[in-house]
This record gives sequence, structure tokens and C-alpha cells, in this order.
Amino acid sequence: MFSTKLEVRYCETDRMGVVHHSRYFPWFEVARTEFFKQGGMSYDEVEKRGVMFPLVDCYCKFIEGAQYGDTVKIEVELEELGVAKCRFNYRVIRCSDGALLANGYTTHGFTNLSFKPINIKKVCPDIYEMLYKLCGEFD
Amino acid sequence: MFSTKLEVRYCETDRMGVVHHSRYFPWFEVARTEFFKQGGMSYDEVEKRGVMFPLVDCYCKFIEGAQYGDTVKIEVELEELGVAKCRFNYRVIRCSDGALLANGYTTHGFTNLSFKPINIKKVCPDIYEMLYKLCGEFD
Amino acid sequence: MFSTKLEVRYCETDRMGVVHHSRYFPWFEVARTEFFKQGGMSYDEVEKRGVMFPLVDCYCKFIEGAQYGDTVKIEVELEELGVAKCRFNYRVIRCSDGALLANGYTTHGFTNLSFKPINIKKVCPDIYEMLYKLCGEFD
Amino acid sequence: MFSTKLEVRYCETDRMGVVHHSRYFPWFEVARTEFFKQGGMSYDEVEKRGVMFPLVDCYCKFIEGAQYGDTVKIEVELEELGVAKCRFNYRVIRCSDGALLANGYTTHGFTNLSFKPINIKKVCPDIYEMLYKLCGEFD
Repeated sequence: MFSTKLEVRYCETDRMGVVHHSRYFPWFEVARTEFFKQGGMSYDEVEKRGVMFPLVDCYCKFIEGAQYGDTVKIEVELEELGVAKCRFNYRVIRCSDGALLANGYTTHGFTNLSFKPINIKKVCPDIYEMLYKLCGEFD
Repeated sequence: MFSTKLEVRYCETDRMGVVHHSRYFPWFEVARTEFFKQGGMSYDEVEKRGVMFPLVDCYCKFIEGAQYGDTVKIEVELEELGVAKCRFNYRVIRCSDGALLANGYTTHGFTNLSFKPINIKKVCPDIYEMLYKLCGEFD
Repeated sequence: MFSTKLEVRYCETDRMGVVHHSRYFPWFEVARTEFFKQGGMSYDEVEKRGVMFPLVDCYCKFIEGAQYGDTVKIEVELEELGVAKCRFNYRVIRCSDGALLANGYTTHGFTNLSFKPINIKKVCPDIYEMLYKLCGEFD
Repeated sequence: MFSTKLEVRYCETDRMGVVHHSRYFPWFEVARTEFFKQGGMSYDEVEKRGVMFPLVDCYCKFIEGAQYGDTVKIEVELEELGVAKCRFNYRVIRCSDGALLANGYTTHGFTNLSFKPINIKKVCPDIYEMLYKLCGEFD
């Protein structure tokens, strides 16, 4: 499974002393960014091609709070791939002891720059190919 | 259903031109804050009593992107209430045309300040009472 | 002096228990947004006209930390107005006791949508007029 | 000069297409975090010792906007060190071409966990020593 490491930022904590729940979604995003690079096309390039992957929905389950000072590993996999949307799964793991802190998913639609749904396989077969390859890695 | 209004902040948008998906969860939180005040006890007071409501999980479905310049209404209801946790539902509505932009939920455990689970009904019956009242409003 | 009120959001606090310093700049932005509306043209409209006010620099002095539960008033004035840039001053005041929590400024250049500097008085005399009126209010 | 590298996060951009100005301060914070580790004591440890470095003021000048896809280098130095406060300088550099995107500073007071000012040299001579060493590096 592909993973990327992050240091918890002070500004990501809230007054409970742990990372604010909303901050896990930008972490998922960082992991997707790195994952796409692995696939050979950055998400920045995807958008330059006139395609966007806006979120359809997202979910996160919180098991234990990440803290400032923690190094965390974000694992990501492309679980489902269709021509209209795809779904990524994530796991947030504390590096010091391997504890699972959170897990979740994000579903993304494929659209043009005006948020109109597109068939990614038809409109950009190479982007579909890249995603297919990333998906296949976990079969 | 209880609701609170927000003006979309410029800093909440991302380069897609719409509000970043992670930003809906702080909006849910603002709605919860106002909702508790309605119940007669602010969440700030709850924490001063030594109780916290950390998230167990959260979900959001995105239907249409909120934009800078939009006024949005966040509806909130307390859907489930137990002695160990509770769940809130939310709907984000664009005020100009009543369009539903997003909906979601958050589940919260009841803990002490060390994140130890507590039976809220036993430990703080008055907080449970406040929540029960808020929950009952939607029966 | 024009002012706007805000409730401190939970997610704006950090583990020190007070609002994270970086969060005051979005508050300044909220105040500017409301200030422009006062002037008769929203900043959203300004951008739709093909003009942007990106920051040249910004400063904030922190006197006392804002806390979750606080209502704060953000005062804003347009202190300087030229044809190439302008400067806003801000004061953050805790409503419960009138204490000054922070003050600062932001300087903005006038540019087109490609970040090219423009002479706002020549390119959009009506926007300049709107700003001039806002500036004049404090003479 | 000590420096640390960051990948620009998607959520850090706003609808102008560049990184929101408020987001440079968390970058400065990341750089400080890494800088302290260099000095032999993490800022997390500093707080565990009962000492905090809350901000007195902060400033940033924006020269060119950082974009999603950019790798940036944050340089940091401890410019001034007293017994009551200290000041850090920062420079944000785009790695691809070495362009200076922004520079700024933050001033921090030394306080106990109740935000009471302390004489760091007297209360925690070893923390002062650590800072002095970091400061001396740039004499």
C-alpha cells in the first residue's frame, strides 16, 4: 500500500490538545497528491488537462487523537474505479508505535473545469489508464 | 430544525473556486455550538465541567459547491442520544435559492478531559438532560 | 469605524487553548468583506470585474488571546488609498469587556486576474470611487 | 541558515489560485519546529517543561504567490534573543528556480502555561542555552 509521512503541525491541534478532526481530510489530500505522482501524473497536471476530481463524499473514523510531535504515516489505496467516479481509502498510523489513529475514504467524481461530469475513460484515456494502474496495484 | 447562518469566507475556498471539502466540518461545529446555547448550556461550559465530546466519526456528502459571496444556512439536529455517545445530522443550504449544498453527520463520544469514556447520564445528569431536551425537540 | 462581529470557532483554537495566531488574518478578511459591502460593491463583484486585491504584506500584534466562547468585534478602516495599492487597519476587540486583543494591517496591490499590477483609478474608476468613499469616512 | 522543505497542499490555495496569505504562518511554524529539533530540544518538550512561546507579533511580505505543485524551502534564523522574548526571521523560496516568494518574522514572548511572562534564562537556563546556541549559529 502506498504511504506518505507527515509531521503533525502545531496549528492542526485544537484546544483539546489533539489534531482537529477536520484536519485529517487535508492529510488524505496530501496522500492522494503523492499517490498520483507515483502513478506518473501529478494531480496538478490533471487539472491543467481540464479535468477535476471534486469530492462526492468523505468519511473518517477517529480511533485515537494525533498529537503535535507525532509523525504519522498516511496509507492510501484506490479502491474503486469507474468511468464517472472513484474511491480512495486511507489509514492514518502513528509511526512511533504503529497505532492506527484513523481511517476513512473519499469519493471523487470526474468533471471538467465547470464541474460538469465527464466519462474519464473517453475524455482522457491516459488519465484513466494512470488511475487503472494505481488501482491494479492492490488487486 | 435548529439552524444558523454563515457567510462563506474567502479563505475557505480553494483553487477550484469553491469551498474546500474539509471546511464543512468547522461549519457543522459552528452549528453545534449555537445549538448547545439553545439548549441552555454552551459547549464551553460543558468542557469547563470536565467533559468533552470528541468525534468518533464524521461524514459529509457534497451536492453543489458553496462559493465566496454565498450565505449558507446550517441546519442541525441531534438524531441519536445514548449514555456513551450521540449523533448529529446537518444540512447545508444556500440561502439565495434554498439549494441543498451538502449534508452529513458527526458522532461524538462522551469522555473526561483525559479522553476516558464516561456515562454522561451518571456523571453529569444535567448535561444529559440538556441533550435529551435538544433531542426531544425533533421527535 | 466600521466593525463586524464574530463568534470564535472551536477549530480556530490550538493546544495552547487560545486562537492560533494565523487565524486572525481570515478574521481581518471577513471584516474587509463586510466593509466592501458597506461601500456598495462586494469584493466578489470586484473579482468578477477582473480585478483582484492580493496582499503585499500583513502584520498583526497579539495582546491577549481570544478564546472559544468569546464574541469578538473586528474594526476595520481603509487608512491609505493610492492608485496602485491600499492599506487597511484592524482592531480585534473582545465584546464582553471591550479588551483590545490584537491589532494589525494588510496592504493590498491592485492587479488583474493574472496578478499584473493595474492603476485602479484608470482601469476601474468606479471601484476606486467606492474605495475613496470608504477611505473618506474616516477623515 | 537552517531550512526545511514543504510541498504546497491543495487546501492551502484559495480561489485566486495561489496559497492564501494566512497559510504562510503555519509554514513558519513548521520551520521553527524543525529548527528547535536541530537545537536538541523539540518545542513539544519545551511545553512539557511548562514553558510556552506565544506570539507577540508577526509579519509577512508577499512577493510572488506559491502554487499547488510547488516545493518550497522555508529558511529560518533566530535573529534576536532576550530573556523575555525572541525573534525569528523567515524566507520562503520556491525550489524549482530559487525565487524568493515571501519573507517575514515572528516575535515570541516566554511565558508559563498561564501566559505569565517569565525570564527564560532564570527559569529554564537549559532552554535559554539551546536558543542561544541556535542564535549563535548565525553570528
